[in-house]
Amino acid sequence: MNQPIKKQIEDFREGDYIRGMFAVRNKETPREYKNKPGKYFFLGVGDKTGEISLKYWGGPDEKTLIQLYNTLQVGDVIEVMGEVAMDKYDNVLVISMDEGMHPLRKCGEEEFKPEDYLPTSERNLEDMMEEMHALVGSVQDENLRELLESFFSDESFTKEFKESPAAMKHHHSYLGGLLEHTLNVVKMCDMISNNYPVLNRDLLITGALLHDVGKIGAYKAVTSIDMTDQGKFLGHITMGSAMVEEKLKGLPSFPEVLKMKLNHLILSHHGNVESGYQAPKGLKIPEASALFYADLFDAKVKEFLQEMEREKNLEDAWVYLRGVGNEVYMK
Amino acid sequence: MNQPIKKQIEDFREGDYIRGMFAVRNKETPREYKNKPGKYFFLGVGDKTGEISLKYWGGPDEKTLIQLYNTLQVGDVIEVMGEVAMDKYDNVLVISMDEGMHPLRKCGEEEFKPEDYLPTSERNLEDMMEEMHALVGSVQDENLRELLESFFSDESFTKEFKESPAAMKHHHSYLGGLLEHTLNVVKMCDMISNNYPVLNRDLLITGALLHDVGKIGAYKAVTSIDMTDQGKFLGHITMGSAMVEEKLKGLPSFPEVLKMKLNHLILSHHGNVESGYQAPKGLKIPEASALFYADLFDAKVKEFLQEMEREKNLEDAWVYLRGVGNEVYMK
Amino acid sequence: MNQPIKKQIEDFREGDYIRGMFAVRNKETPREYKNKPGKYFFLGVGDKTGEISLKYWGGPDEKTLIQLYNTLQVGDVIEVMGEVAMDKYDNVLVISMDEGMHPLRKCGEEEFKPEDYLPTSERNLEDMMEEMHALVGSVQDENLRELLESFFSDESFTKEFKESPAAMKHHHSYLGGLLEHTLNVVKMCDMISNNYPVLNRDLLITGALLHDVGKIGAYKAVTSIDMTDQGKFLGHITMGSAMVEEKLKGLPSFPEVLKMKLNHLILSHHGNVESGYQAPKGLKIPEASALFYADLFDAKVKEFLQEMEREKNLEDAWVYLRGVGNEVYMK
Amino acid sequence: MNQPIKKQIEDFREGDYIRGMFAVRNKETPREYKNKPGKYFFLGVGDKTGEISLKYWGGPDEKTLIQLYNTLQVGDVIEVMGEVAMDKYDNVLVISMDEGMHPLRKCGEEEFKPEDYLPTSERNLEDMMEEMHALVGSVQDENLRELLESFFSDESFTKEFKESPAAMKHHHSYLGGLLEHTLNVVKMCDMISNNYPVLNRDLLITGALLHDVGKIGAYKAVTSIDMTDQGKFLGHITMGSAMVEEKLKGLPSFPEVLKMKLNHLILSHHGNVESGYQAPKGLKIPEASALFYADLFDAKVKEFLQEMEREKNLEDAWVYLRGVGNEVYMK
Amino acid sequence: MNQPIKKQIEDFREGDYIRGMFAVRNKETPREYKNKPGKYFFLGVGDKTGEISLKYWGGPDEKTLIQLYNTLQVGDVIEVMGEVAMDKYDNVLVISMDEGMHPLRKCGEEEFKPEDYLPTSERNLEDMMEEMHALVGSVQDENLRELLESFFSDESFTKEFKESPAAMKHHHSYLGGLLEHTLNVVKMCDMISNNYPVLNRDLLITGALLHDVGKIGAYKAVTSIDMTDQGKFLGHITMGSAMVEEKLKGLPSFPEVLKMKLNHLILSHHGNVESGYQAPKGLKIPEASALFYADLFDAKVKEFLQEMEREKNLEDAWVYLRGVGNEVYMK
Amino acid sequence: MNQPIKKQIEDFREGDYIRGMFAVRNKETPREYKNKPGKYFFLGVGDKTGEISLKYWGGPDEKTLIQLYNTLQVGDVIEVMGEVAMDKYDNVLVISMDEGMHPLRKCGEEEFKPEDYLPTSERNLEDMMEEMHALVGSVQDENLRELLESFFSDESFTKEFKESPAAMKHHHSYLGGLLEHTLNVVKMCDMISNNYPVLNRDLLITGALLHDVGKIGAYKAVTSIDMTDQGKFLGHITMGSAMVEEKLKGLPSFPEVLKMKLNHLILSHHGNVESGYQAPKGLKIPEASALFYADLFDAKVKEFLQEMEREKNLEDAWVYLRGVGNEVYMK
Repeated sequence: MNQPIKKQIEDFREGDYIRGMFAVRNKETPREYKNKPGKYFFLGVGDKTGEISLKYWGGPDEKTLIQLYNTLQVGDVIEVMGEVAMDKYDNVLVISMDEGMHPLRKCGEEEFKPEDYLPTSERNLEDMMEEMHALVGSVQDENLRELLESFFSDESFTKEFKESPAAMKHHHSYLGGLLEHTLNVVKMCDMISNNYPVLNRDLLITGALLHDVGKIGAYKAVTSIDMTDQGKFLGHITMGSAMVEEKLKGLPSFPEVLKMKLNHLILSHHGNVESGYQAPKGLKIPEASALFYADLFDAKVKEFLQEMEREKNLEDAWVYLRGVGNEVYMK
Repeated sequence: MNQPIKKQIEDFREGDYIRGMFAVRNKETPREYKNKPGKYFFLGVGDKTGEISLKYWGGPDEKTLIQLYNTLQVGDVIEVMGEVAMDKYDNVLVISMDEGMHPLRKCGEEEFKPEDYLPTSERNLEDMMEEMHALVGSVQDENLRELLESFFSDESFTKEFKESPAAMKHHHSYLGGLLEHTLNVVKMCDMISNNYPVLNRDLLITGALLHDVGKIGAYKAVTSIDMTDQGKFLGHITMGSAMVEEKLKGLPSFPEVLKMKLNHLILSHHGNVESGYQAPKGLKIPEASALFYADLFDAKVKEFLQEMEREKNLEDAWVYLRGVGNEVYMK
Repeated sequence: MNQPIKKQIEDFREGDYIRGMFAVRNKETPREYKNKPGKYFFLGVGDKTGEISLKYWGGPDEKTLIQLYNTLQVGDVIEVMGEVAMDKYDNVLVISMDEGMHPLRKCGEEEFKPEDYLPTSERNLEDMMEEMHALVGSVQDENLRELLESFFSDESFTKEFKESPAAMKHHHSYLGGLLEHTLNVVKMCDMISNNYPVLNRDLLITGALLHDVGKIGAYKAVTSIDMTDQGKFLGHITMGSAMVEEKLKGLPSFPEVLKMKLNHLILSHHGNVESGYQAPKGLKIPEASALFYADLFDAKVKEFLQEMEREKNLEDAWVYLRGVGNEVYMK
Repeated sequence: MNQPIKKQIEDFREGDYIRGMFAVRNKETPREYKNKPGKYFFLGVGDKTGEISLKYWGGPDEKTLIQLYNTLQVGDVIEVMGEVAMDKYDNVLVISMDEGMHPLRKCGEEEFKPEDYLPTSERNLEDMMEEMHALVGSVQDENLRELLESFFSDESFTKEFKESPAAMKHHHSYLGGLLEHTLNVVKMCDMISNNYPVLNRDLLITGALLHDVGKIGAYKAVTSIDMTDQGKFLGHITMGSAMVEEKLKGLPSFPEVLKMKLNHLILSHHGNVESGYQAPKGLKIPEASALFYADLFDAKVKEFLQEMEREKNLEDAWVYLRGVGNEVYMK
Repeated sequence: MNQPIKKQIEDFREGDYIRGMFAVRNKETPREYKNKPGKYFFLGVGDKTGEISLKYWGGPDEKTLIQLYNTLQVGDVIEVMGEVAMDKYDNVLVISMDEGMHPLRKCGEEEFKPEDYLPTSERNLEDMMEEMHALVGSVQDENLRELLESFFSDESFTKEFKESPAAMKHHHSYLGGLLEHTLNVVKMCDMISNNYPVLNRDLLITGALLHDVGKIGAYKAVTSIDMTDQGKFLGHITMGSAMVEEKLKGLPSFPEVLKMKLNHLILSHHGNVESGYQAPKGLKIPEASALFYADLFDAKVKEFLQEMEREKNLEDAWVYLRGVGNEVYMK
Repeated sequence: MNQPIKKQIEDFREGDYIRGMFAVRNKETPREYKNKPGKYFFLGVGDKTGEISLKYWGGPDEKTLIQLYNTLQVGDVIEVMGEVAMDKYDNVLVISMDEGMHPLRKCGEEEFKPEDYLPTSERNLEDMMEEMHALVGSVQDENLRELLESFFSDESFTKEFKESPAAMKHHHSYLGGLLEHTLNVVKMCDMISNNYPVLNRDLLITGALLHDVGKIGAYKAVTSIDMTDQGKFLGHITMGSAMVEEKLKGLPSFPEVLKMKLNHLILSHHGNVESGYQAPKGLKIPEASALFYADLFDAKVKEFLQEMEREKNLEDAWVYLRGVGNEVYMK
């Protein structure tokens, strides 16, 4: 057999002998061989370009395999060496890997970068952060700007904000997605406050900048995007509201009504009860209406595009997209 | 004219000459006399037994009347002396009061007790508090009981909790309403956890005891029940969640998952999105389901009864009740 | 081959040689062997602890097998003797049984007890019946109590009532489920009538005791729970209403309005049209509201718990439960 | 003053001195004169051509008036003599009647025919009954025809069926409305069973003929259409289902499945839960679908036409009709 | 009496003797005097600053008044001279005008400009048209630009487009409203196509420019905004689609698929069926999604602001706004 | 091997050696043999009696097979010769065809008639067309009849109208379905206009005759029913409206209001927004209501029957039918 080669999953071909590090996306309980001692198991593994099934064939002593299996967690990165084969039944490629030839190895956190296993925004993160800082600087109201700076001058916050996804799958579900989505929403809000100067631009821009900060703690994206327990129990809206309230404790002269309006913008950004989303509070000020519809606009258009992207390799002119709810013209 | 008498509004009869202190429920802009100098205005005033219209006839110098009018706020208590008369057009009783005879006087806060101007629970508040404390004591889990005691051993909290209403009008909209409603819900939860022992009774009882604590700050009830600005901008669910989180900061050894579950009980007590209420979070644990349906059960039955009570003086056998959505049999 | 052993399905292990009686849950048309004369067929069989697939291999004369197959009905109990084997494709255990070795035999009704093939309430049926009778006795109104006794002193009714399930799958879908659910609802109604004494307790308790009696005829549960044709065409609400009307014919002095209110409680116990259930009549009296929400409360909490129970062997912390409509925390 | 004249309400003119018998549609509590002893009250009265307000001025001894007032019930017919006057405030005609001139008299049931006080179908009732009998005769299935004859050969049933309204206001809300609506629905069902011969015509025609028989007891129409208590508590669907079941007891050889299908047609004629009507049972056979949509078709078109008729004296080209939910073109 | 003065309605004061030309907004049937021969009638009249009631008192020969009344149509402009008086019952100002003093006169179309009777956009129409033309010029695709120019180089179209309102009342319901709304939507679409370059900007901008052209024929705004019969029967979406199809007939080389996509953008701009609007076609391409949400965003924010503007003279901090569906904070 | 035989798909038996022409319903990408050079592919093929899978085994030179595969389109008709075999895994019949034995051949359009590959109405098309023409002739209004004749005297229109399906799958989804459905709806409208003579029969009959003409261009049915791009982008309602408007251009004296009403009938035949269909315009005239409910009636009953037909070979008494939304009784 030849030397193994390094490739990304999207480049795998039948017969390749490959070696590489991949993230564990899911795992299946080990099964026994029908005709000899020992066990085998299947894993789903991925990198940022795709996913593939790994078939791992254990040796005669099943204890080794079980021990290995039990140490593996979804999100781990493992070193794999094996052959890319065509699965006869499903007609898909798999990696076939033999314990006796080259045992599977779990990698340490220092060996890889999570961003190698997750899709990332196609836009430049630094450029977007710069735009974001300029918009922070454009806020005239001193209280609001001081609050914004308490977030955006905090490097640890900024780092998380820059890398967080905006969703698990519906829209902007990739590293940098939160930043990209927030930036789009803020700019829409900026434009509408030009169109309707009666809107409180400073309040609206601040609310738009902070509306999804709760997502930083609601999602975890090490090698795959998942929701945290906190995200599932409490939700990003309540979490974001609490983050802002916490920062406001450090700004004792912040006006009471402004405080309530700003928190209201976060709590109401899923609209009225009829919106069909988890909506803690209905729209009570026009800035809340502007933020809700700007958010909806960006999220819905992006979701439509992502759904199309996901099906781009189909050749059909018309494809039913579940998230859109329609058969869509793909050409 | 005879000496004025003191009566509650429900006992007023045409021709009575009355004197008493009543709360201002609403006010109407002063108007000019058509045929002589000066102005008059109308107020809505009430006590805990009902509401009546006050017609206040100013003297020839309108400045006195305007000055008086501008000092009056909804919620103020005023001293009134005048005749109970039949309004010709609307065929209802009013108080007719003449500035020249006995000027209207705004009372100081020390002159009255708010509970004299608001309906109160028909059940004994102290008895209910005692039942409540017994239920607090029945919680076995030390963390949860410690949290509960941080609320219910705090006298200022207990006082507010005891007197707060549970709503502006739909159900338990009277002093003590929060206590009465909470007690009913807790007892329902206690019963269901007996029926289904797999439920975590301590968690459920604690969630039920605290589910509406945010209403303490969301409503104000001095002489009439109104929602605070905070209640309108943020809502009692988010406010209650924040109150619990605040207390939990003082309990550092409180287990993380228990903390999230408890907060989740508060955030999800309006059910899933389809419930039609402002629902920040859907039901993720069976205790959340139990709390939501127990709350719904007590609130809906009480609302039905209150709607009937409100129309009890109609003689019709069948009356349409908006809150119920049906024509209801009243006998 | 060893002697066959008797085991419940949850205890089967690969290689067991078993003998036992199981209920037919579903059946599949016989197929021909590819390489020899004769046919084979598959059945789903079960006992109260689980379900398994039975592969029945016929001999060269296919008429015997066809004849046997045609006599089998879902719900029958059959005697089985064969080996527990691992199905290669689905990786599940099956019973493999050979006509030539030990022909399958359909058992007579006298050979088994249906309760051995269906799950049963975990609560003691006799204890619950005793509680039920005590609640019947607590009704003060003579007309209502006489009506209740016409049901609950009738042994054949009582027997059916005690053993009926309350649903096919959503909640209390097991023998004794109707009794357990009814008891829970009655007790909730008892508690709410203590909280709101203006409710007519006797009417409410009677309505709660009888609200689901139509389910006795709407479900059949011999060895599996199914809906009868009558249940599908007419529904348990209309059937229950007719049962009560029938009994009332024997009570000529029963007051007319009380009769209508009681029948209304049965007809309206799925709430108003907006409830999303088959709702013949909206809520017209407060006792109807109490019964609807008590029923909803017990059914929804139980459904949540049953759905969790069904997935208890999954190790995931979060599992999507269709009946709840959410991803649920399982720990 | 001249001799009084007899006129129908639609022909009243200001200044007419009229005498006639009218039905009481509603009544208002007596009020006191402001400037003299005694009381007066207002009644709404009507005949089949319209409604008018009656102002009844009592004499100095108010007891006579109160006694009279207490004997009057909505639905009574009274003899009235007085002047038709223009009401200054509302700019509408009223009857002004003076106790001293000609006291109001309550008429005995033998003095009037209810059909003189209610609108009646514009189609000939006898002709429609004949068509109905012909359709009954067209049913081939002996069981179904025997059942139909047990209804339609019963003269007291036929009389009630012929005169009953089909609704309080939405559609066919007049004497003969049930007959007219039923006939339309049956003929639609006849046509659709010609179009789709796979439909069981006999079953469908029978179901259509009987689908609304419960309305006979659900409405009372003596001099105005009202719902009975039974109609409000139980509804015409359950009542009709019970009527059919009662008749079926006299037909012991009626096939069981046919019985269930027929009862199902009645129980399901408001469609599936999503229909937005009180729907005890969803559509389980194609005949149920046919009956539901035929019923909907006739009722909806008639409702549209009745709403237009009600507003026909408006000159506007476009009028918003609540029952239709749209602004409608009236020309 | 003094010389009459000219004022706009918002400046009227009790006692003013005014002369002016006002548009007829609605009219009420003439009534007879109670105590003398002759008739009077009421009109609602308005200018761009408000509305007021006109009470017109006829002379003894009622024929003159009837003749005049019959010539008046809603939308006419009439010359009025009379006194501004306080209506005793409603406490509002009215114009009181006496036929004998100064007969009401219907003005010819050459005497007034409709824009004097209707509110107009606060933004400069010419500036907005210039921005619009620049956006037309930014379209690169020759077919689309040629189509756009066939509209926007047509002076009569441009004039109508510039002056049309965008709605009867919900949003942009004033002269220039269509232009202002369209411009906002186009700019939003421009921004989103920068954010997501995969969108076909030329198609999206063209669709946005033309999405509401049907409103030109669907509304008429001479002196008040009303919907045309065509608008009511066909709707602006179908009308706009037909206008574009008509223009496309003059462009034979326009690609077929582009033609369908463009027409689709117009037909789908009310979103999918679930949107709750009259939606001829669901969203089939991502540009349709972008247009729908951009349109919704601008319309909803504007509606919120217009509703607040309408209630701006209320002093309450919180006002329920029907169009928003919430109590809104007005400060 | 014997001579091949000709059979329709519903008559195929295992072991048949068949030859015939079938329509391509779908195709799957060619796969490589595991153990020898060359490829094979699967097609779905059908005639008017059913569908079957075709397994086509290529020879050693894969280019021939690829070239053939690329020329095949869904909707093509191909000549097939091969053996009917039992697929071992799915237990279904397939056609097994070997390139070496008898290569697959794509047929020219002159070789087959599309109606041989599609189900056709069971009713006689000519008889239905005659009925249709008689109904056209029954329209009294000259303008409407002239319009109808401009359609129905046009042979190319008539041919398309006669052969078009009325849907892809829900109802009347076969050749002649449009004609059959239209005829049913017209006759229902005829009957309702007899029942309610106030309806404009001529307008209603004309609207009913034309309501679905847009389906001629919205569907294409050569050998299978599919929606055209135009149908997907624009919809049959807008397309039908445009067809009628086009014809009306040739009838300059057609009254304007009648024109709008007729177009409105087409645009509103899916009812008000709440109907849940793509509904460009709500119901504005009673004829629109009649047409909508007649259309719904025929479509829904037919859909119920088609769903039952599709499952007729199941032996179960009760089958869940998705289009009906219920478990349905099949006997």
